[in-house]
Amino acid sequence: MHRYRTHTCGALRPSDVGASIRLSGWCHRIRDHGGVLFIDLRDHYGLTQCVVDSDSKAFKAAETARSEWVIRIDGRVRTRPAGTENAELPTGAVEVYIDDLEVLGPAGELPVPVFGDQEYPEETRLKYRFLDLRREKLHANIMKRGAIIDSLRRRMREGGFFEFQTPILTASSPEGARDYLVPSRVHPGKFYALPQAPQQFKQLTMIAGFDRYFQIAPCFRDEDARADRSPGEFYQLDIEMSFVTQEDVFQAVEPVLRSVFEEFADGKRVTRTFPRIPYAEAMLKYGVDKPDLRNPLVIADVTDEFGRDEVAFKAFKGVIASGGVVRAIPATGAAGQSRSFFDKLNDWARSEGAPGLGYIVFEDEGGTLTGKGPIAKFIPAEVQALIAEKTGTKAGDAVFFSAGTEAKAAALAGKARIRIADELNLSDKDQFAFCWITDFPMYEWNEDEKRIDFSHNPFSMPNYDRDEFLALDPSESEKILGIKAFQYDIVCNGTELSSGAIRNHRPDVMEKAFGIAGYGVEVLEEKFGGMLNALKVGAPPHGGIAPGIDRIVMLLCGEQNLREVVLFPMNQRAEDLMMGAPAEATPKQLRELHIRLNLPEKQG
Amino acid sequence: MHRYRTHTCGALRPSDVGASIRLSGWCHRIRDHGGVLFIDLRDHYGLTQCVVDSDSKAFKAAETARSEWVIRIDGRVRTRPAGTENAELPTGAVEVYIDDLEVLGPAGELPVPVFGDQEYPEETRLKYRFLDLRREKLHANIMKRGAIIDSLRRRMREGGFFEFQTPILTASSPEGARDYLVPSRVHPGKFYALPQAPQQFKQLTMIAGFDRYFQIAPCFRDEDARADRSPGEFYQLDIEMSFVTQEDVFQAVEPVLRSVFEEFADGKRVTRTFPRIPYAEAMLKYGVDKPDLRNPLVIADVTDEFGRDEVAFKAFKGVIASGGVVRAIPATGAAGQSRSFFDKLNDWARSEGAPGLGYIVFEDEGGTLTGKGPIAKFIPAEVQALIAEKTGTKAGDAVFFSAGTEAKAAALAGKARIRIADELNLSDKDQFAFCWITDFPMYEWNEDEKRIDFSHNPFSMPNYDRDEFLALDPSESEKILGIKAFQYDIVCNGTELSSGAIRNHRPDVMEKAFGIAGYGVEVLEEKFGGMLNALKVGAPPHGGIAPGIDRIVMLLCGEQNLREVVLFPMNQRAEDLMMGAPAEATPKQLRELHIRLNLPEKQG
Repeated sequence: MHRYRTHTCGALRPSDVGASIRLSGWCHRIRDHGGVLFIDLRDHYGLTQCVVDSDSKAFKAAETARSEWVIRIDGRVRTRPAGTENAELPTGAVEVYIDDLEVLGPAGELPVPVFGDQEYPEETRLKYRFLDLRREKLHANIMKRGAIIDSLRRRMREGGFFEFQTPILTASSPEGARDYLVPSRVHPGKFYALPQAPQQFKQLTMIAGFDRYFQIAPCFRDEDARADRSPGEFYQLDIEMSFVTQEDVFQAVEPVLRSVFEEFADGKRVTRTFPRIPYAEAMLKYGVDKPDLRNPLVIADVTDEFGRDEVAFKAFKGVIASGGVVRAIPATGAAGQSRSFFDKLNDWARSEGAPGLGYIVFEDEGGTLTGKGPIAKFIPAEVQALIAEKTGTKAGDAVFFSAGTEAKAAALAGKARIRIADELNLSDKDQFAFCWITDFPMYEWNEDEKRIDFSHNPFSMPNYDRDEFLALDPSESEKILGIKAFQYDIVCNGTELSSGAIRNHRPDVMEKAFGIAGYGVEVLEEKFGGMLNALKVGAPPHGGIAPGIDRIVMLLCGEQNLREVVLFPMNQRAEDLMMGAPAEATPKQLRELHIRLNLPEKQG
Repeated sequence: MHRYRTHTCGALRPSDVGASIRLSGWCHRIRDHGGVLFIDLRDHYGLTQCVVDSDSKAFKAAETARSEWVIRIDGRVRTRPAGTENAELPTGAVEVYIDDLEVLGPAGELPVPVFGDQEYPEETRLKYRFLDLRREKLHANIMKRGAIIDSLRRRMREGGFFEFQTPILTASSPEGARDYLVPSRVHPGKFYALPQAPQQFKQLTMIAGFDRYFQIAPCFRDEDARADRSPGEFYQLDIEMSFVTQEDVFQAVEPVLRSVFEEFADGKRVTRTFPRIPYAEAMLKYGVDKPDLRNPLVIADVTDEFGRDEVAFKAFKGVIASGGVVRAIPATGAAGQSRSFFDKLNDWARSEGAPGLGYIVFEDEGGTLTGKGPIAKFIPAEVQALIAEKTGTKAGDAVFFSAGTEAKAAALAGKARIRIADELNLSDKDQFAFCWITDFPMYEWNEDEKRIDFSHNPFSMPNYDRDEFLALDPSESEKILGIKAFQYDIVCNGTELSSGAIRNHRPDVMEKAFGIAGYGVEVLEEKFGGMLNALKVGAPPHGGIAPGIDRIVMLLCGEQNLREVVLFPMNQRAEDLMMGAPAEATPKQLRELHIRLNLPEKQG
């Protein structure tokens, strides 16, 4: 017989009745029914009810056992007495009568119980993560995480991709966040950086001729924590492809994400064909570049309507006169809402710094659509009808307005769209709604510094004729601000899973692109010289994307916080409370690394 | 037609003759046959011969192309002229006549050529790694590395293991090497450490109840570089299992390694059942704890034989009298070697600090085995016969002797065994010869500090009755030094792929084990408090191993240096010459991290 077990705690079935077996596991729950002890024995695979009474020589040892002790038992499988079966447990038809019991790992007092549904403070849970992880939901989440990663990996390989490992001790990467630095012992005064992403390495892998790269890649950013980003490290499904257009990237990635989501969605719907929404359209219709398409509301521009002579609403007219816009957010079925619904939205808008949210409520008056509400009287019926048509609103609906500079009006409308749909419960949450956002602008106007700057990623290829691009004069700012990049985002349920791009693989185009944004060749060479050198020895057109794995797992586990899907997460202050990191270094270590501390002065 | 290609450069076959196709790739080799240009176009998948002459409108553009330029060509597939087929190339029966050509990525002068077999200095190769990687052998090695890792992963999963990701920004781990430290911005004066191995995390994963863990885990050690260990980072197949004995670990790991080696061995033999060799036996028979079993020679102890009264060889007698030993290394077939063979071995032994290697050459004199050589006359025939029997030597063989303290004699014998087999070409190199080394001693005598210390891993479980172990008195040093640990190594062709152990999961046994080595509970608690806490809440018996992936890939690629199997390796001085790491940090970065530099004074 095996030293510890003949079966796992999830294995026994009625067909095993009569067998002499051995189990090992944790005492999940111990019930004392006066002379009869019931021990639910738990391991990774399941739970088995074990029974012992004073007829067994194991009874005395069993009486000493406590919750979460690890024990080994020998016993005989028997049918549970009629009426005590547990249909929810795969082993629920049987129990094991304990003949022998050995304590393998006793436990002292538990700082966090495993059995039960009690909530515990985050700090306690993280300090005793090894206990917290024994709880059913978290255990299942971590296993689901592993299964999702396995599935991603398998599908990538089936799609002709190969996995590579890129360096973790490396040089600073131009991702825009703060680097984690690692002092070099061998090179005094010098530092490695942990990769914010393997961006340069995956491009170099393409330049080296490998064609289809992927990696389940750890990334490191020294940023303040957010619920949807672990402090310190996170993982992305890093992807890069050679000889591809943007369309090829979509065709490679979309089926992988769709099928992984279908596999783990627990029956929720997954978008069949991901709509592609140009950035400008997303900003108009959803007021944001990561729209949650579960929300059916679509914003419309009603600047023209409010600009008409016959409209007398001065506040909006003033906005329009100074170059602003008016956006309309439909609120399906809101006409029946009480006054407080409209007041709350107005209060909220004021808390966002807006003067308020104008609105019209549409009612059917003898077959005629009639607008009601504070500002309706300033808008003639025929313009109301135009607005209703543009926003798709009917009698029984309302429509809210957001006016201001284009950026501000769009942003407020975007937030109002979410709020209205939440209040009215309009979103069908039983789905994963994907979309691509495309055609990001290459440049934007930096109002503070009064100059043209990169809008998102300086390394994306402009979607522009190459010769014409090289011939651009920096003074042609209107032309330049109109240039789109081959850059795209993948969004699911309002969460941005990743940006991606077709890369700028031509050194001449890159130098020009940086020049337009006011950076000289020397800046490019100093900061990205390695990359620039590589582009000069025969670089293929290439592009990719890097969906965030932690976010995918969060979505599929239905969790709001990363600590629920990461095995050993740090807390929000970037501390590992379980292992005690970060910690002080010894003077010898600091000396060897050629650094000394430079501590902030203590506040008296 | 796709923007860049209808086929890869490895795809075209005679069945494609007549087709209009598009290819993209690198100009591997360009030959100008007076008015006819042959361009071997290369991509990740293969090579296709393309042809263009002055009848084509692409001729002018083709004339500008140079080695390693990336081009796109449109053309028609045709059969190669009879006699010019290349049977070694999958596309070797066809060629493409170029109708159109576009330069996608031109190249300047190449610091390293891709075509050809020329060797280049390591520094140049590493600086231009993206070019070096285009060469066939290195490209194939990196792809093989990926395939090996895929295979390991698949087999682990088939074996019921699950993959987890453990933290990379973490606390110092007790692996004995130097840590890489990462200063914390949020916690002034504190540091993260990069994991030397996920040892504690994998044990905590078991304590958390997960049962079967594996990870293709990056590990970080700030050690000076060796050919078989990358400076900085390396990967291991990290494995841990709960409720297992040492035998279970062997049964889980052995089939995975055997089958992966069989899969990638290119026909070389792989050990069917890995022999298990106790540490003491390995030190006796092979003089080392990582024996290369391709070498058929087996060392024997002949202390008793040389100690006999009738033996008159004073040098060895003196060694034996002072507690030393004599070891015999057979040299199969060496009798036919010239005098210089023996002289060279003697010279080598002296260079190793030994007085020399005594030896006997066995000859057949009229049916009687007769020993010859400098020391034979001191050894009577009947003792010579005993030695021949013990070492398995026959007429035509020789036997060498190594005498000294047990450790020194064993070490010299071990080295001599390798040398002799190399000189005589006795090893069958066409195989991967595996073994387990078991029964490592738990403790050893620290002669410098005159005390008992841990021999290898302080966290292994002693192979000793628990109650008796807890009752040991530190003065019982003989008993203590005889204790074996449940610790083992896996060795292939003389390379240690990994150590492993059944872990000490009992806090009481761990405290005792540290106490015996002179460490108080406070040391244990200060250094390994997190682990100790975890063991106190119900820990299962568990154990594991962590075979080095880079070493496995090196063996299977037949390479001697890690840089041949790592995508972007650092050089021996821990520099990434391509990316320029490590590099100086900005004063702002240092300030944010609460450190300043402490540079060594420059030598005048």
